Amino acid sequence: MIKVGIIGATGYAGAEIVRILSGHPDAEIVWYGSRSYIDKRFSDVYGNFFKIVENICSDDDLDTLADKADVIFTATPQGFLAGVLTEELLKKVKVIDLSADYRIKDVATYEKWYGIEHKSPQFIEEAVYGLCEINRGLVNDRTRLIANPGCYTTCSILTAYPLVKEGLIDTSTLIIDAKSGTSGAGRGAKLPNLFCEVNENIKAYGVASHRHTPEIEEQLGYAANEPITLNFTPHLVPMNRGILATEYADLVVREDGSVPSSEEITAAYEKYYSGEHFVRFLGEGKCPETKWVEGSNFVDIGFVRDGRTGRVIMMGALDNLVKGAAGQAVQNMNLMFGLPENTGLDLVPSFP
Amino acid sequence: MIKVGIIGATGYAGAEIVRILSGHPDAEIVWYGSRSYIDKRFSDVYGNFFKIVENICSDDDLDTLADKADVIFTATPQGFLAGVLTEELLKKVKVIDLSADYRIKDVATYEKWYGIEHKSPQFIEEAVYGLCEINRGLVNDRTRLIANPGCYTTCSILTAYPLVKEGLIDTSTLIIDAKSGTSGAGRGAKLPNLFCEVNENIKAYGVASHRHTPEIEEQLGYAANEPITLNFTPHLVPMNRGILATEYADLVVREDGSVPSSEEITAAYEKYYSGEHFVRFLGEGKCPETKWVEGSNFVDIGFVRDGRTGRVIMMGALDNLVKGAAGQAVQNMNLMFGLPENTGLDLVPSFP
Amino acid sequence: MIKVGIIGATGYAGAEIVRILSGHPDAEIVWYGSRSYIDKRFSDVYGNFFKIVENICSDDDLDTLADKADVIFTATPQGFLAGVLTEELLKKVKVIDLSADYRIKDVATYEKWYGIEHKSPQFIEEAVYGLCEINRGLVNDRTRLIANPGCYTTCSILTAYPLVKEGLIDTSTLIIDAKSGTSGAGRGAKLPNLFCEVNENIKAYGVASHRHTPEIEEQLGYAANEPITLNFTPHLVPMNRGILATEYADLVVREDGSVPSSEEITAAYEKYYSGEHFVRFLGEGKCPETKWVEGSNFVDIGFVRDGRTGRVIMMGALDNLVKGAAGQAVQNMNLMFGLPENTGLDLVPSFP
Amino acid sequence: MIKVGIIGATGYAGAEIVRILSGHPDAEIVWYGSRSYIDKRFSDVYGNFFKIVENICSDDDLDTLADKADVIFTATPQGFLAGVLTEELLKKVKVIDLSADYRIKDVATYEKWYGIEHKSPQFIEEAVYGLCEINRGLVNDRTRLIANPGCYTTCSILTAYPLVKEGLIDTSTLIIDAKSGTSGAGRGAKLPNLFCEVNENIKAYGVASHRHTPEIEEQLGYAANEPITLNFTPHLVPMNRGILATEYADLVVREDGSVPSSEEITAAYEKYYSGEHFVRFLGEGKCPETKWVEGSNFVDIGFVRDGRTGRVIMMGALDNLVKGAAGQAVQNMNLMFGLPENTGLDLVPSFP
Repeated sequence: MIKVGIIGATGYAGAEIVRILSGHPDAEIVWYGSRSYIDKRFSDVYGNFFKIVENICSDDDLDTLADKADVIFTATPQGFLAGVLTEELLKKVKVIDLSADYRIKDVATYEKWYGIEHKSPQFIEEAVYGLCEINRGLVNDRTRLIANPGCYTTCSILTAYPLVKEGLIDTSTLIIDAKSGTSGAGRGAKLPNLFCEVNENIKAYGVASHRHTPEIEEQLGYAANEPITLNFTPHLVPMNRGILATEYADLVVREDGSVPSSEEITAAYEKYYSGEHFVRFLGEGKCPETKWVEGSNFVDIGFVRDGRTGRVIMMGALDNLVKGAAGQAVQNMNLMFGLPENTGLDLVPSFP
Repeated sequence: MIKVGIIGATGYAGAEIVRILSGHPDAEIVWYGSRSYIDKRFSDVYGNFFKIVENICSDDDLDTLADKADVIFTATPQGFLAGVLTEELLKKVKVIDLSADYRIKDVATYEKWYGIEHKSPQFIEEAVYGLCEINRGLVNDRTRLIANPGCYTTCSILTAYPLVKEGLIDTSTLIIDAKSGTSGAGRGAKLPNLFCEVNENIKAYGVASHRHTPEIEEQLGYAANEPITLNFTPHLVPMNRGILATEYADLVVREDGSVPSSEEITAAYEKYYSGEHFVRFLGEGKCPETKWVEGSNFVDIGFVRDGRTGRVIMMGALDNLVKGAAGQAVQNMNLMFGLPENTGLDLVPSFP
Repeated sequence: MIKVGIIGATGYAGAEIVRILSGHPDAEIVWYGSRSYIDKRFSDVYGNFFKIVENICSDDDLDTLADKADVIFTATPQGFLAGVLTEELLKKVKVIDLSADYRIKDVATYEKWYGIEHKSPQFIEEAVYGLCEINRGLVNDRTRLIANPGCYTTCSILTAYPLVKEGLIDTSTLIIDAKSGTSGAGRGAKLPNLFCEVNENIKAYGVASHRHTPEIEEQLGYAANEPITLNFTPHLVPMNRGILATEYADLVVREDGSVPSSEEITAAYEKYYSGEHFVRFLGEGKCPETKWVEGSNFVDIGFVRDGRTGRVIMMGALDNLVKGAAGQAVQNMNLMFGLPENTGLDLVPSFP
Repeated sequence: MIKVGIIGATGYAGAEIVRILSGHPDAEIVWYGSRSYIDKRFSDVYGNFFKIVENICSDDDLDTLADKADVIFTATPQGFLAGVLTEELLKKVKVIDLSADYRIKDVATYEKWYGIEHKSPQFIEEAVYGLCEINRGLVNDRTRLIANPGCYTTCSILTAYPLVKEGLIDTSTLIIDAKSGTSGAGRGAKLPNLFCEVNENIKAYGVASHRHTPEIEEQLGYAANEPITLNFTPHLVPMNRGILATEYADLVVREDGSVPSSEEITAAYEKYYSGEHFVRFLGEGKCPETKWVEGSNFVDIGFVRDGRTGRVIMMGALDNLVKGAAGQAVQNMNLMFGLPENTGLDLVPSFP
């Protein structure tokens, strides 16, 4: 039985880890860390866990926790883990970080986009970017530190990855227009997240400046084997869960003047995803819907090839709290502990 | 492995049976009956099941199905099962009916409230009203026909049952004000269920005439050991799932002028529910929220005793598609096949 | 031109006064008071007013304001106005208070339900409870202080008033089950009002203890000419605007054993409301919907007489920010300044 | 007083014309045409108009109507007007068509995208594309036939128009990612528009094939003075009203290697819109929200210039039923009858 500690257990992502691990046969939670609710029952904070989780919330004492747990999930604000992580800690316990602290390899890029100093850059090199479908080979029992990808990022990268990797699109034209449910904004009591502000409304935000941009650029850059600069525009949608990424790119024009066919695009998706448990490639002409993946660890992907404009429109959908956060974190845990990747993660999407 | 056939598999309740049985270790679905989608892939009707359910929908051929299945769930309109049920069928296969056809013991009452003739009243006596928490003793391997309770009904009855049974309230004053999500209206393409008609709106409907009324009256009448006439008012709420019942009754005034105390009310709830897996009694002063039970088979119940008015306000919440339909049906199946009652039903509510 | 000052202009109710007065031919706003947004453009706080309201928000300086304005609307927290109101102020300017400070005639009742000391009880007697349909005679150019009724209260009272006044129901059995959109909770950044907490959820709150209870009891008590004690249960609904009150009462049984007929009930409603501009009596068997009144100053009322139970179910719907707050306040202003009552208030409900 | 007839008065757009004209000082509706609700009270179809509109719905008898009305609004399915329009009719009455029948000048393009034969192409040349901000000069008392622009189209065109017209963007790179509330889908009882299908969900649809595409291309092509081919992707959002268009284009690179500055972009918007009553240019870095324009005839526009990628992200928001349909139709009517353009259209957006 894997002993799990959670720091930030009472945020939406933290609570989703609790929900998923409730049904995990090989893991048990030994620490519900929550600075805001120390000594309160977890089920008083989240009534859905009444009679399911009887535990009390604790503080953030990482040292004590490190002795009790085999792995720690940190579902905490940017900068928290970087401020407290030590070699001593990593010798005792594996860490899966849901914040952005170790996702970006270039410290300067991190500090520029996040506007904070990185307090422990020495661990960045070691940290594995835990997008399992792409970096599975790097996640194993020797992995000590996982940088769990962001929600927008996971969706944006996986939707375009095969076409970038196979060189079917002109990456200099890549535009990602993403739409997210409101749980991605967290459980903080902020005016813009009030029901009456979000409901019956849609808006873009963080245009040309959202922090997930460099993370997407870096990872797709690895796939392209060259730097990529792209536009990423997030939007806030009046729903609880779900991210939809609509991505546009010019098809490459080859020397003979041809552009990739529908069959080639389909083949690229199938090459990378036909063996993937959590990526459901819907096929050409199919538009994924966030509702079809709600509550599950799936990413649904489809595309339309537009001969008129010479572009391909790629679309991907996932549940931001599952594949975009807690589910992917558990997927990483499974790999780190040698379990089948889908252990405890065969969650069937719920509709309606 | 229990072989399951579903008639009406592509309605919301039918699809929820599919979702729940996807995770049931001892049951497999052998028949996806759907008159509207014959020969179509089930996952083309419900995209959430893509790559999870590969089966094709079939017609309603009960005779063929009876030879293949151990149990049939009928998630069909009122009157369907009554029109086709035969002794021969019941000799071959157990039936769990999610419609109202066999819920009401008095045929005349059924025909009056539902406005249709009952085509097979000879089975009414045998049918067991499958509210497991109350009729568990009647659901076992000899049970052939279950009348699975309605969604409003399950919520309304369980919320008041202990106080009625223990004689703590004056049942002649019982008023049930219920609020339901829109999935209770089914997947039929009807104007009043369009997004723009339901969203940003609340209304009562079926006032003093809703068909679940006699079902509630009958079952609570058994608990009271005398007939009950009550008001039941349903309301349509702009959300997908969930029923909340707010119930009002005068506390009985005993011969010495006393009325039941908070402790007595609490004791009554605990007497009947402390051993129940799927009823979570929240305690005095606690108000259940539909979100806390979403996706699960739980009913959450709380109450407030109002000394000023001499009344008790009882509140109950459940997910209309789970405990109010598919989950309760599977709970009955488990009992009929000698399985632990919660097999495949330990669904953790999802929040947000 | 009536010169209007608003204290609390950036709350939802305050901003709704601004919206309504934007179209009022005889009033102009001279003061946008907002402690939180002093010196900010009003349209930076509420983007909908961009290019419509160019004004800057000011502080709460009532004395300066009193010299500039003919009437002040206070859309402020409980206790604010009571803490600052003076005879000197009332000599200069009329005040329409949207808080509860002067709604309840009995100070002890106010202090008990609101849990705060009343700082200027000397004005309670003078204050007119501004439910125009009932107290129109008291609102005129000599009126200095209006206690503008609460949103739940306006809906609850008007729905039952004719039947109480005419003695058709047994007021000791009156139960009010109310459902409200979320704007009623205000624009404060509080966790329970976050989108993800409210959306896809319904719950009761303040059961047997909500502060609008004594206000309803007092006003309906005047109509009944005797004290009334009743149950009032509010619920939070995932929508922006709208209140629906579903009210239950036993029909009176007269000495000859008869109970009021449908015709008598209809006649009572028509007696009081057929001449009312803002009350739309829908008739027997009609269920009002909050969407039908959204954005308008209407209250829609219908009823069902249930012969089985001897009860009448009354239903009323209004927009909590209009007839439940800002609209009614302007209606009072119109009366106080001798204008036709509906000046600037002929807002057509918007659907969908 | 302009006498108005409406064909299709009981669709969402038709009913919105009724709402707007209810407050129009110089127009009165003399015909509520509704094939589905002949002889029913209009207010029985739309309860919000109870006691406001007392009229009865009529059939589609255009000839009779032409004798009674000065102008006819046709809020009807594609092909209806083209099938019945005659020279005789146009001699008697002005027609404002909210369908696409006369929007596209090239019949072949219309027939290809709409998949129907055009029955009266002889009127296409005469029809004025009624996007007032651009074609105001063509809308006057001699105009007989207005092709009222589509909702997506109005938003998409106005958002990009100044930059296209001024040659600041490379139109071959223009991509429009649009998001719409559900009222745009109309009031037809179709499964995909049911509450439970739309709520808590977002999806793209009509990708690379939506019928508003050629309309946008044609109009922006006039501005560019050359043909434009672009991608337009609509998405369905769980809200009633509102369209947000997020548009991407490369800034032109001039011979000297420079690209347009923020100031140039701002100047272009101000050149075309500073005098416009219904276009609110928010400025650089401002993201319009659909809620800020709800219920009004405004279009809100903002932009972000992204130096990293050399692109500009343009954003526009409007209410699809007002500026995207009924409001713009009334705006055209005002121009056709010599009234101030904003007569009856100074609707203040409602928030929340």
